[in-house]
Amino acid sequence: MRTRFQNAMEDLKQRLLTMGGLAEQAVDRAIEAYRKRDQNLCFDVLEGEKAINSIEREIDELALDLLAMQQPLAVDLRFITACTKINADLERVGDQAVNIAERVLSIIKLPPVDLPVDVPRIAGTAAGMVRRALESFIEGRADLAEAILKMDDIVDRMNRETHIVLVEKMHQNPDCVQQALDVLLISRNLERVADHATNIAEDVIFWVRGADVRHHAGPRATPTAESAD
Amino acid sequence: MRTRFQNAMEDLKQRLLTMGGLAEQAVDRAIEAYRKRDQNLCFDVLEGEKAINSIEREIDELALDLLAMQQPLAVDLRFITACTKINADLERVGDQAVNIAERVLSIIKLPPVDLPVDVPRIAGTAAGMVRRALESFIEGRADLAEAILKMDDIVDRMNRETHIVLVEKMHQNPDCVQQALDVLLISRNLERVADHATNIAEDVIFWVRGADVRHHAGPRATPTAESAD
Repeated sequence: MRTRFQNAMEDLKQRLLTMGGLAEQAVDRAIEAYRKRDQNLCFDVLEGEKAINSIEREIDELALDLLAMQQPLAVDLRFITACTKINADLERVGDQAVNIAERVLSIIKLPPVDLPVDVPRIAGTAAGMVRRALESFIEGRADLAEAILKMDDIVDRMNRETHIVLVEKMHQNPDCVQQALDVLLISRNLERVADHATNIAEDVIFWVRGADVRHHAGPRATPTAESAD
Repeated sequence: MRTRFQNAMEDLKQRLLTMGGLAEQAVDRAIEAYRKRDQNLCFDVLEGEKAINSIEREIDELALDLLAMQQPLAVDLRFITACTKINADLERVGDQAVNIAERVLSIIKLPPVDLPVDVPRIAGTAAGMVRRALESFIEGRADLAEAILKMDDIVDRMNRETHIVLVEKMHQNPDCVQQALDVLLISRNLERVADHATNIAEDVIFWVRGADVRHHAGPRATPTAESAD
């Protein structure tokens, strides 16, 4: 028979998964809005932020209640603190989706220009990292989480390449400065989504192994400042 | 006579103040590097990140130790969790300083251009918010923390104005696209420093009053997506 504590721990996990689903959906929608130049999808993302913020608060309160219960074991303590950190990162993924939606609203108002960058591809990789980070969390698998640390380098590289291409474009054609800048900022937002997925992966590793992998060389190349949040 | 718990709580607070000092100094140095076009100051900021990351880990471990001690009181629990959140925000302030230093290194390599924006003024306001947020934390004063929430709107506005001016400049003079973009990104980094100061202020209010002010209308205008981290 499960104790009240175990039930509350399970509840915490489930809510965090709901939160993750909402954050991931927000990024997907914002990118669909970009592809389709769809204003309504942008508004959906802006509106959806409320639900994400509300569940973020619930998770934090639940975690605090759990900490207040009598002496959780070391592994449970690490799990609860990992949950509060993952919670904060997921909320910030939602913020990035909102930023992207705002930029898409700006782009839609301007004449379309052909820019040689593949935003949905960067988005696919970044959103995939969030999804996998949550999977590593559900399954408590540090090996899955480690694979995500490597993917972060790929997104960093895609973001840098996009940056170079767009600056060149702005230089050549001043009439598309605003559009190119909007896309450059979307690319940076996606790179930050990947950073949050990386943070989540690191929290999973800490929870499972009890080791702090933050700021260590580990399997990942030295992070550049570009990847800082 | 103070207990072991009280000593550890005081230690946690002191280390967080050290962390805050380092993060604030990193931002100040990065902006001095911008003003003086000084490469060595940029390298100082990049080098200083290690110390910030190292103290961040120490604080997290200390907080976890404190949580593992027998049943901290509700107010202590809130204090400890506030410390871990403030810790994460301060580390991100340090990351923003690193981002700024990297952009300054890019700017220094290019011919100087005269851009009609006052970066040190934005920096002064943003760094002042971090300093005041830490003061509100030391003194446990929610009223000081609330004043910071209002300052965030000022930095948001400065950042938006800078953005408009620089896009116009890029449009008029394609030869300064890269320089204008670097300054635009520095302005955004500073706006994010202000966001982290706001987060810290909210954590102080939560600790002191036990109320969650995040995502509430409160004394602050509705945050725009621009202000999201």
